[in-house]
Amino acid sequence: MNLKHISIIGSTGSIGTQTLDIVRAHKDRIAVSALASGSKNLPLFFEQIREFKPPLVCLPDDDSAKQANEFIEAHGLAKTEIVTGENGLIAVAQCPTSQLLVTAVVGFLGVKPTLAAIKCGKTIALANKETMVAAGHLVVALAAKHKAEIVPVDSEHSAIFQSLLPSLQKDALASEVSKILLTGSGGPFRTWSYEEMSHATISDALKHPNWSMGSKITIDSATLMNKGLEIIEARWLFNLPAEKIEVVIHPQSILHSAVEFVDGSIVGQMGLPDMRLPIHYALFYPERVESQRVPRLSLSAIKQLNFEEPDLKRFPCLALAREAALVDDSKACVLNGANEIVVDSFLKGEIKFLDIHRNLERVLAEHKPIKSPSLEDILECDQWARERARMVMAAG
Amino acid sequence: MNLKHISIIGSTGSIGTQTLDIVRAHKDRIAVSALASGSKNLPLFFEQIREFKPPLVCLPDDDSAKQANEFIEAHGLAKTEIVTGENGLIAVAQCPTSQLLVTAVVGFLGVKPTLAAIKCGKTIALANKETMVAAGHLVVALAAKHKAEIVPVDSEHSAIFQSLLPSLQKDALASEVSKILLTGSGGPFRTWSYEEMSHATISDALKHPNWSMGSKITIDSATLMNKGLEIIEARWLFNLPAEKIEVVIHPQSILHSAVEFVDGSIVGQMGLPDMRLPIHYALFYPERVESQRVPRLSLSAIKQLNFEEPDLKRFPCLALAREAALVDDSKACVLNGANEIVVDSFLKGEIKFLDIHRNLERVLAEHKPIKSPSLEDILECDQWARERARMVMAAG
Repeated sequence: MNLKHISIIGSTGSIGTQTLDIVRAHKDRIAVSALASGSKNLPLFFEQIREFKPPLVCLPDDDSAKQANEFIEAHGLAKTEIVTGENGLIAVAQCPTSQLLVTAVVGFLGVKPTLAAIKCGKTIALANKETMVAAGHLVVALAAKHKAEIVPVDSEHSAIFQSLLPSLQKDALASEVSKILLTGSGGPFRTWSYEEMSHATISDALKHPNWSMGSKITIDSATLMNKGLEIIEARWLFNLPAEKIEVVIHPQSILHSAVEFVDGSIVGQMGLPDMRLPIHYALFYPERVESQRVPRLSLSAIKQLNFEEPDLKRFPCLALAREAALVDDSKACVLNGANEIVVDSFLKGEIKFLDIHRNLERVLAEHKPIKSPSLEDILECDQWARERARMVMAAG
Repeated sequence: MNLKHISIIGSTGSIGTQTLDIVRAHKDRIAVSALASGSKNLPLFFEQIREFKPPLVCLPDDDSAKQANEFIEAHGLAKTEIVTGENGLIAVAQCPTSQLLVTAVVGFLGVKPTLAAIKCGKTIALANKETMVAAGHLVVALAAKHKAEIVPVDSEHSAIFQSLLPSLQKDALASEVSKILLTGSGGPFRTWSYEEMSHATISDALKHPNWSMGSKITIDSATLMNKGLEIIEARWLFNLPAEKIEVVIHPQSILHSAVEFVDGSIVGQMGLPDMRLPIHYALFYPERVESQRVPRLSLSAIKQLNFEEPDLKRFPCLALAREAALVDDSKACVLNGANEIVVDSFLKGEIKFLDIHRNLERVLAEHKPIKSPSLEDILECDQWARERARMVMAAG
């Protein structure tokens, strides 16, 4: 059995720690080449360095790098190279001994390291959806050029990937797939009226019915922006027009998504809502390897699966993202950048829940879309969107 | 586009006519090399001969062959070779111009032609489950030897096939698949008590909730024998021990079956209950080709899918078949042969619904199982089972 060497950017976040849980259970199959983390939980990151002994680690800044250096020396962990900041992230992404990069950072930060790893032909286990949302057209073009595989880690996109794999392997997605059925739980406000949502608190919005995730993505699940961003992600990942991507609300989060083929057959992937399932799949792809740790789904224990159409009126963020998915310009990048800022404000208690979509609409109304944006355009649009979002919120 | 040449045995039955419906809609893709039919509906068979102009046709006997000859001459259908009986079926199966044989006959009759086609390396679109039930071990060994592909047409096995295709293509079923989830509607008596079933009439038993099929298989669906025979069929088709095949009752017949992989992921195939879906898939495999004729499934229109465990006490036929699936001997063949006779008696009003399992139990109790039976053993066991079934029923 070959040892697979991986790097992780965002190792102390929700996806990062679960990835390392899987590595821990499969040390005979996976080794860690490089880890990168932000500053939120340095003690955990140091613990990961001690446990997994990656030859390369990336710290957010010089101060944390100094701490890491002391920790490494104190624990006698020789041969650990320390890098920092954005260039450090890129060094982790390009780490020569690693075959696969897990992009587990949240937000726009994932774009450059992902592109860097693709240029080295590495497989990307993609958990950073913002990369595909903002720069999907660049990512897929570059991946095709460098023959780098992108295996999605989002549970929905992993489900789609698993469902259409035979067509993907034949390079026949365009002729064989008629529709993607992107499922979503509907979030904590699925049954709330728009009026009721105007009183939603931060803690209401953080109560996701099925998934335990980071706070930004949990708010995105409450607004259904997450499902909208997933339309954009799916569009690029599977190179299908957004018209062929349909959102289906499925409160139990058991059918993680499905694909309708041109012959009318629908193939879908199911499981309990547990992110270790798609992470495990991406780490071992194209093999399927035994997992002892993921609890098994019993359909007769679950008894019932429900499905309904999404309500775009109550969830205007989904409508905004769908519109951005239908066009081929910088709208998705602006929506994504502004959304990060606006959601952050909501989480800080600065704005109300329904202000999220209102502020996004105001930013988008001011944006002059750029057709097929370059990486520079995207970086600029992202910056502009963030500044603009802060301004429209400050204006109240 | 290449024209695929196919032969069909059992062209006037439920699967046969639906196969020809698909051929009719795809005349640019599929041509009919040979057709065989029994005596039940000769006018329809003659009409099929006129429409599809197969170069080879098989009639059940000399009398019907004479009628066919007159029909062919009257309609000026030159170059139609006529064969008859069992040897005729084999000639159809081996028809040199045909690449694919659709085995749409019901019952044990399908065994010899299937084996004959496999010996010629033809792809088998297998709709005759009794072939796999009685002689599965011989069929799969022969198919491996002659590199003949078997594509199942049963909706459940087609669903399983579609779900595990990536593992099948890697030849990794044994290491990657942990369980097959074989779904069944539960039949018309799903909610009946055993006592209530004692009064079930033929017409009660023929009221299948979801599927429109032939009468023998519809009765097998009412006893759940059909699901049991499908366990045996799946065991051989996918070369997995019966312990790994779990029956799940799913009243809506939307999830046609699923596969649980060793990583805990479940992949399943869905669609409206329409046999044209799996037939279409088998005819065009490995391609997926657009079907205009099969109505599309909308999950949000269906709204709800339910699952429950099967009740082996109320459905003893399922228990009988499961036991036969667990062993490697002639039990499955005997169960299958006796079941054909007993179900036929029920359909003629000679025995009651619950007498089906009682008589099968009596036949099985008298059978001395033969380990890994040869084709001769199987033919003998089948004959013995039928005679014995008639005798135990005559004894009352």
